[in-house]
Amino acid sequence: MEKYWVASMEEFEFGAEVLTQPVLKRLRDIANECRGDILKMTTIANSGHPGGSISSIDIYTIVYSLTDLDKDKVVVSHGHTSPGVYSILGRLGIIDREELLSFFRYAGSPYEGHVESHLPHIVWSTGNLGQGLSAGCGFAIASKLKKKNSHTFVLMSDAEQAKGQVAEARRFASKFSLNNLTVVIDYNHRQISGKIEDIMPVNIKENYLADGWRVLEVDGHNFESLYEALHTARNDKSYHYAILSETVMGKGVSFMEGNVAYHGSALSGEELERALNELGIENDIDRFIKIRKEKEPQHFIKSPVHELLPEIKVGTPREYKVGEKLGNRNAFGNALAELGRLNEPGTIVALDCDLAGSVGLKGFGEVYPEFLIETGVSEHNTATVAGVLSTQGIHTFLADFGVFGIDEMYNQQRLNAINGTKVRLILTHCGINVGEDGKTHHCIDYLGMVRNLPGFAVIIPADINQTDRITRYLPKMDRNVMVVMGRVKEGVISDLDGKPIFGGGYEFEYGKIDIIRDGNDGVILSYGYALRLAIEAQEILAGFGIALRVLNVSSPLEIGVEDVKKIVEYRNIFTYEDHLVGSGLGSIVGNHIALNGISVNFQSFGITDFAPSGNVKDIFKKIGLDPETVANRIKEKI
Amino acid sequence: MEKYWVASMEEFEFGAEVLTQPVLKRLRDIANECRGDILKMTTIANSGHPGGSISSIDIYTIVYSLTDLDKDKVVVSHGHTSPGVYSILGRLGIIDREELLSFFRYAGSPYEGHVESHLPHIVWSTGNLGQGLSAGCGFAIASKLKKKNSHTFVLMSDAEQAKGQVAEARRFASKFSLNNLTVVIDYNHRQISGKIEDIMPVNIKENYLADGWRVLEVDGHNFESLYEALHTARNDKSYHYAILSETVMGKGVSFMEGNVAYHGSALSGEELERALNELGIENDIDRFIKIRKEKEPQHFIKSPVHELLPEIKVGTPREYKVGEKLGNRNAFGNALAELGRLNEPGTIVALDCDLAGSVGLKGFGEVYPEFLIETGVSEHNTATVAGVLSTQGIHTFLADFGVFGIDEMYNQQRLNAINGTKVRLILTHCGINVGEDGKTHHCIDYLGMVRNLPGFAVIIPADINQTDRITRYLPKMDRNVMVVMGRVKEGVISDLDGKPIFGGGYEFEYGKIDIIRDGNDGVILSYGYALRLAIEAQEILAGFGIALRVLNVSSPLEIGVEDVKKIVEYRNIFTYEDHLVGSGLGSIVGNHIALNGISVNFQSFGITDFAPSGNVKDIFKKIGLDPETVANRIKEKI
Repeated sequence: MEKYWVASMEEFEFGAEVLTQPVLKRLRDIANECRGDILKMTTIANSGHPGGSISSIDIYTIVYSLTDLDKDKVVVSHGHTSPGVYSILGRLGIIDREELLSFFRYAGSPYEGHVESHLPHIVWSTGNLGQGLSAGCGFAIASKLKKKNSHTFVLMSDAEQAKGQVAEARRFASKFSLNNLTVVIDYNHRQISGKIEDIMPVNIKENYLADGWRVLEVDGHNFESLYEALHTARNDKSYHYAILSETVMGKGVSFMEGNVAYHGSALSGEELERALNELGIENDIDRFIKIRKEKEPQHFIKSPVHELLPEIKVGTPREYKVGEKLGNRNAFGNALAELGRLNEPGTIVALDCDLAGSVGLKGFGEVYPEFLIETGVSEHNTATVAGVLSTQGIHTFLADFGVFGIDEMYNQQRLNAINGTKVRLILTHCGINVGEDGKTHHCIDYLGMVRNLPGFAVIIPADINQTDRITRYLPKMDRNVMVVMGRVKEGVISDLDGKPIFGGGYEFEYGKIDIIRDGNDGVILSYGYALRLAIEAQEILAGFGIALRVLNVSSPLEIGVEDVKKIVEYRNIFTYEDHLVGSGLGSIVGNHIALNGISVNFQSFGITDFAPSGNVKDIFKKIGLDPETVANRIKEKI
Repeated sequence: MEKYWVASMEEFEFGAEVLTQPVLKRLRDIANECRGDILKMTTIANSGHPGGSISSIDIYTIVYSLTDLDKDKVVVSHGHTSPGVYSILGRLGIIDREELLSFFRYAGSPYEGHVESHLPHIVWSTGNLGQGLSAGCGFAIASKLKKKNSHTFVLMSDAEQAKGQVAEARRFASKFSLNNLTVVIDYNHRQISGKIEDIMPVNIKENYLADGWRVLEVDGHNFESLYEALHTARNDKSYHYAILSETVMGKGVSFMEGNVAYHGSALSGEELERALNELGIENDIDRFIKIRKEKEPQHFIKSPVHELLPEIKVGTPREYKVGEKLGNRNAFGNALAELGRLNEPGTIVALDCDLAGSVGLKGFGEVYPEFLIETGVSEHNTATVAGVLSTQGIHTFLADFGVFGIDEMYNQQRLNAINGTKVRLILTHCGINVGEDGKTHHCIDYLGMVRNLPGFAVIIPADINQTDRITRYLPKMDRNVMVVMGRVKEGVISDLDGKPIFGGGYEFEYGKIDIIRDGNDGVILSYGYALRLAIEAQEILAGFGIALRVLNVSSPLEIGVEDVKKIVEYRNIFTYEDHLVGSGLGSIVGNHIALNGISVNFQSFGITDFAPSGNVKDIFKKIGLDPETVANRIKEKI
């Protein structure tokens, strides 16, 4: 309570029926001071979003002031209102107000343009609208899964209600009865381009009701009205509420009220003077401007702090024998089910977008039905929920077809990357391995996509033995990792003596390249399903007296300087993959070769266009990527 | 009418009040035959989705049979029911039934796994669920904009109603009063994993009502009931309707009814025998199996056929003078507004996701308010609508911040690419040029993303003069093209004599590399905003007596063999960009150098991680990408 000295113990956490007069006054005073801080910091930075920040500030003031932030979570979905969030955190003594006003939006300071989760009590970085309710769903369900008694508030704008992901999140909350979740919507009827009723009308109230929520309507600038609704929502343990808070953009500064010009523009010095005058606040910005000019911030951007992932038992590798045929996705499923059996409930969670049977989650679901979170056809919300769960000390597996898990969820995975989450994103049906399903289902860009996500690791197992070992390795990884698999059932990959290469004493190590076949005339780098084709091509070439070394690059984003030095010694270098050649392993290896500055004989083989629908082997032949064609082209090139 | 010989002239196009008995019988007979065809083709291909196809087949039969397909559009959103769609098109004589049954899902035949728009009267390829209603909105609004009297039917599944994009599309239809749009939902209460009420409950009826639709509820296996609803929806010109059609998955085959096991699995030979027996249909699959084995299909995959883009006037280039400062986005906006003024209404349409003022669309909107389509914060629906509009003979500009236009819309742009659309996707605020807004708004992956979209062109103007010329060049391009711009206002780029490089007689040509500065000690390749930094670095190096050639690569995906041959002659090769270096120009050039097989001194400069929020120049310095640092590193490398 020392930290948040606004209310009495009874009023704190929205416990009392009504607020006392002194607390009401205190909230009003703080909100007024925050208005001043919002205007000052944006004018000092000459950048930022004052209009919406002021519209939301009474909501922020009451929610942050009366919430136990060590226990409960507050997600701000319209992250551009960062001046509002920062100002209340500053006034509550949670962040350094002087530094904030001096270094808002200053390169290298932690007070970034949109709210960022490296700051205390900002639990989720946002900025692209419409993702915050999903994050709130993540925190709320994490609390339920871990049997904590924590509440989550999601503060949103009205315009972002038009995003489809919000509808997905609403239904998720209803399916899982997230009665520990409350949404507060800043309903100022304004978006950048004008009135929301003109730009994109949304029946917000009807939408929430239709998706099974209760809706309360309040005056968003009246603390008594806000408190009454928050009290109901916080204390009714049987329902989830949306509080529609009628507000005015720029409320409290006459010339800003309802004026969208101040959505994304700071006030000029003169306008600031007028505004502060109206608010009865002293204009002391010169002091902060001086600090900004002469000093550097004391606080810097750090990685977001998350709950540690618990150490879990991973069992002993399962040895698939020569002759056994299975999809990598099935081997993943078997291993995940075993991880489930070996560990306490709640340490591992799996998320499924209506493909559990295809992506290997059925077995885990049989062990722990309550920890297999089935979300239907709602990929965007699921990606964000998974991201949040992974920050709450839960080993989180999200399994989906490649085209959904990365192509459809890309921007949500990007926000996960920004938030430093630790998702285990399992992509199945990648490459053209799901042949008959055709173009829309061929995920031929997974590497090309994930290369754009700083911090994401990628692992592509070659067979079921390697998949088993990789699945047991994942819990050790303290970062986002994408694991890529195909669809078809294949046997184990063996050495020339017929012994499984990824069985026995083999241990997976992230970043390590495996030698699959040896030879001195050149090297083929491959991974995943294509590795089998590379081995076939190598065998065909052996018939012509050409001996190629075949390498399995199961961590293609980690090819290092030392690897390349060794590879370029072979002079004849080839890559072979069922991925777009322009953005996959071929282009990665090519770039490394060029950076190495050595002239070699290099050719990459991969996909160049959308592929037809049909039997996998037929497609490879049709697009000139079957082992015979590739072997012939390599022969010509050597 | 000859082609669709099912109904009388009066019943055709849902004109009559009720169907006559002969027509009812004919529809029932056809639907039964289609059921047989669905089961046969999936068993022959040993692949495909019979359960949902049979669930939808009565809807498909009546809609396709009674619609004037030369005028009206039918979009099938749950594209995996392709056997259903193909079967009715086969029975109506629109596609070759014998070939279809023989070559469904056969590599190289047009009868692909999910419905594909290269087939006649399949107007939109689908496969990833939840995009079909957006496509329908595109066709419906195109009809309105072009003052055609055409109706669009969208046939959807129930499970895909969980996708957020569907909610965005519903609101779009209501905002634009698309009373020429009818949705028919196959409500079989089943999705792959089980009952939709268990997997992801969706209050479908309430959702449509809340978003301003009228809802009719019918028996989806009763043609009289279906006809009545379709008649109402087709003829009421004042409202848009959703028809909730209660169905049974696998209806008509006892052991398939309600059984999700047949969602995505073909019947075995024995099961097929039983099923055809129940339907009273002869089992003649041996004939087609023989053809599949012995012959090749006569019809092949072709590009989808779209309406031609009209030739339009592009005016004369506007010459920005040295000293004028403007954002490229503003120059784009000026040019687009002029294109608007020069041409007939309806030849050009612009779409905006609540950023018109920032992305240069305001001017066009002043010329033609009715052709500036403002969609609010609903990127997914907007991307698909834009794709469809571009196929309807309309020059379609979709302008948005980079992080929304490509990161958020990626999978929708991917479906656009599959459909061979011709969108002009204008991305503004790219790179770290929108400095203060921070990580979520820094689009540092636009090239890395678009490299994964076969058929997409990319153009990155360097200054306002080049932007003007590029904007006037776009109408000539018969493909999807992404144009990339920053945010900041900058002057024109001049040669050493102070003459604007992209002014005067300069003509933009897609794929051409421009020489900006000359020198013999090496070459720097750059584009967009970074080109200015490259010029600065070149000037610094000139001070050290190092003379570098500076090249503007405004079409980075088109670097060709001849370009690379010329470039590698310089031996010292550098790239400089405000994009992730691992997936941008650096990696493209590196790969080309390696494929060329010549050893050179190569170094790429670009972004390696999410960047901080702050002043643009400060950020470049903070991340070691300012001209001084880069010049020093180049000096060391040479």
